Amino acid sequence: MGSKESSPIGIFDSGIGGLTVAKAVMEALPAEDIIYFGDTARVPYGIKSKETIQKYSAEITRFLVSMNVKMVIIACNSVSAVAKEVVTEAAGELPVLNVIDAGTKAAIQTGKNQIGVIGTLATVNSGAYKRELLKRDDSLIIKSKACPMLVPLAEEGWTDNEVALKTLSIYLNGFKNNGVEALILGCTHYPLFKSSIKKVFDDRDIEIIDSADAVARAARSRLKKTSMLNTQDKSGNLSCFVSDHPQRFRELAERFLGREVPDIYIKHLQE
Amino acid sequence: MGSKESSPIGIFDSGIGGLTVAKAVMEALPAEDIIYFGDTARVPYGIKSKETIQKYSAEITRFLVSMNVKMVIIACNSVSAVAKEVVTEAAGELPVLNVIDAGTKAAIQTGKNQIGVIGTLATVNSGAYKRELLKRDDSLIIKSKACPMLVPLAEEGWTDNEVALKTLSIYLNGFKNNGVEALILGCTHYPLFKSSIKKVFDDRDIEIIDSADAVARAARSRLKKTSMLNTQDKSGNLSCFVSDHPQRFRELAERFLGREVPDIYIKHLQE
Repeated sequence: MGSKESSPIGIFDSGIGGLTVAKAVMEALPAEDIIYFGDTARVPYGIKSKETIQKYSAEITRFLVSMNVKMVIIACNSVSAVAKEVVTEAAGELPVLNVIDAGTKAAIQTGKNQIGVIGTLATVNSGAYKRELLKRDDSLIIKSKACPMLVPLAEEGWTDNEVALKTLSIYLNGFKNNGVEALILGCTHYPLFKSSIKKVFDDRDIEIIDSADAVARAARSRLKKTSMLNTQDKSGNLSCFVSDHPQRFRELAERFLGREVPDIYIKHLQE
Repeated sequence: MGSKESSPIGIFDSGIGGLTVAKAVMEALPAEDIIYFGDTARVPYGIKSKETIQKYSAEITRFLVSMNVKMVIIACNSVSAVAKEVVTEAAGELPVLNVIDAGTKAAIQTGKNQIGVIGTLATVNSGAYKRELLKRDDSLIIKSKACPMLVPLAEEGWTDNEVALKTLSIYLNGFKNNGVEALILGCTHYPLFKSSIKKVFDDRDIEIIDSADAVARAARSRLKKTSMLNTQDKSGNLSCFVSDHPQRFRELAERFLGREVPDIYIKHLQE
């Protein structure tokens, strides 16, 4: 096995929400080593200007490249929306995947015509999912809804209590009464609400598209196609780097990752 | 009137929540000019390390000093908890007030013995209110509760709907059943929930202490004592500076300020 195949996959996000993507990648590609970077010192990106997000994304990509990754996965929707070109440039020859492209492709593959998108205010306002979907099929009918309360709910651990269900029911009310057939979860935190979302739609048949799963499948397919799969017969390692050590980090990280979190390293980026 | 009396009051916060403090100061001191700085590029501070918060606070204080303010008010609980010494040093000769000291003094003045404190996770975990209260009266019984959902609720504009009331009822449940007689609102966003909090306590008699009002009263008293009141007979000006222009800024700012927001200037701090 050459050195490139055994290199880790780099995944980054503005914070720790992207660990849902790390989790999906670990499930799809259990032998791969992963280097995760969460920019916890500067989270959230969603409210920052495009220029600031691009600058931060380039810094992080250079860090991942310096760690000898073989692929970069943008787990952050805000970065995917406004900085994928910057990341691709900073990544040089390395393949770069992102949650918006992957989620969009997965939505198209469902064959459904009416597609709903939920995300943070920044992601929805960027119009990135809508734009990418229409680029692939301009006959689609797209309806979007920003759901700003879902990230704090997920971080509070309230994903299926009365407050969560009432909040989801307010946000998803419009989708319940129109013809939406598939719903893209356009935010790294949202996979935690999958079962509550199903509850809110109760008997309505709706396909839920998880961008984390979608980008993990895309990564596996790309690595296969380029003969870059890690063929070691043990489980891959996950190394977590964060730019600051936020409170409750471990508790939150374990919630998003769905398992115990290994060692966490602090990596300060230039300021 | 000397030049110092006519100088503005500087108020700063990690974001725009501190506009509730600007509002309280404008009500208590209508003739004063105010320079407000919200570090919207780097909000939230609560999850950042002490060193980072201190560095940012010193930068902002130097900016306010360069704007010739006559007083610095720290509207941010996280800064008040970990950086008031740093701000005092950067402010040189200028008086520095902060929401924690002011809220604490106001709580003592109620004469109540059992005091509740609500705030963000960072403020509550810092123990700053508890420490300051016990320093003034070690016979007090203090009970604290972090309420992480209240900031996003306020920013979503959900301060009295079903979700807000249910959330408050979960957070305040402990206070309802113990002997708490006064409740400190230890976060700039919380004044927006005053009437909903009263609803949740329904017949329980509880005194609500708003740190924004408290620091405004403290500012008036300090300016009077030092003959530094602005005696102009027109309303003072409010100038708003932010380090980045976040989405929905104007809408949010108007909600916190309770009136139309004047011109907003972008002031980039060093990075």
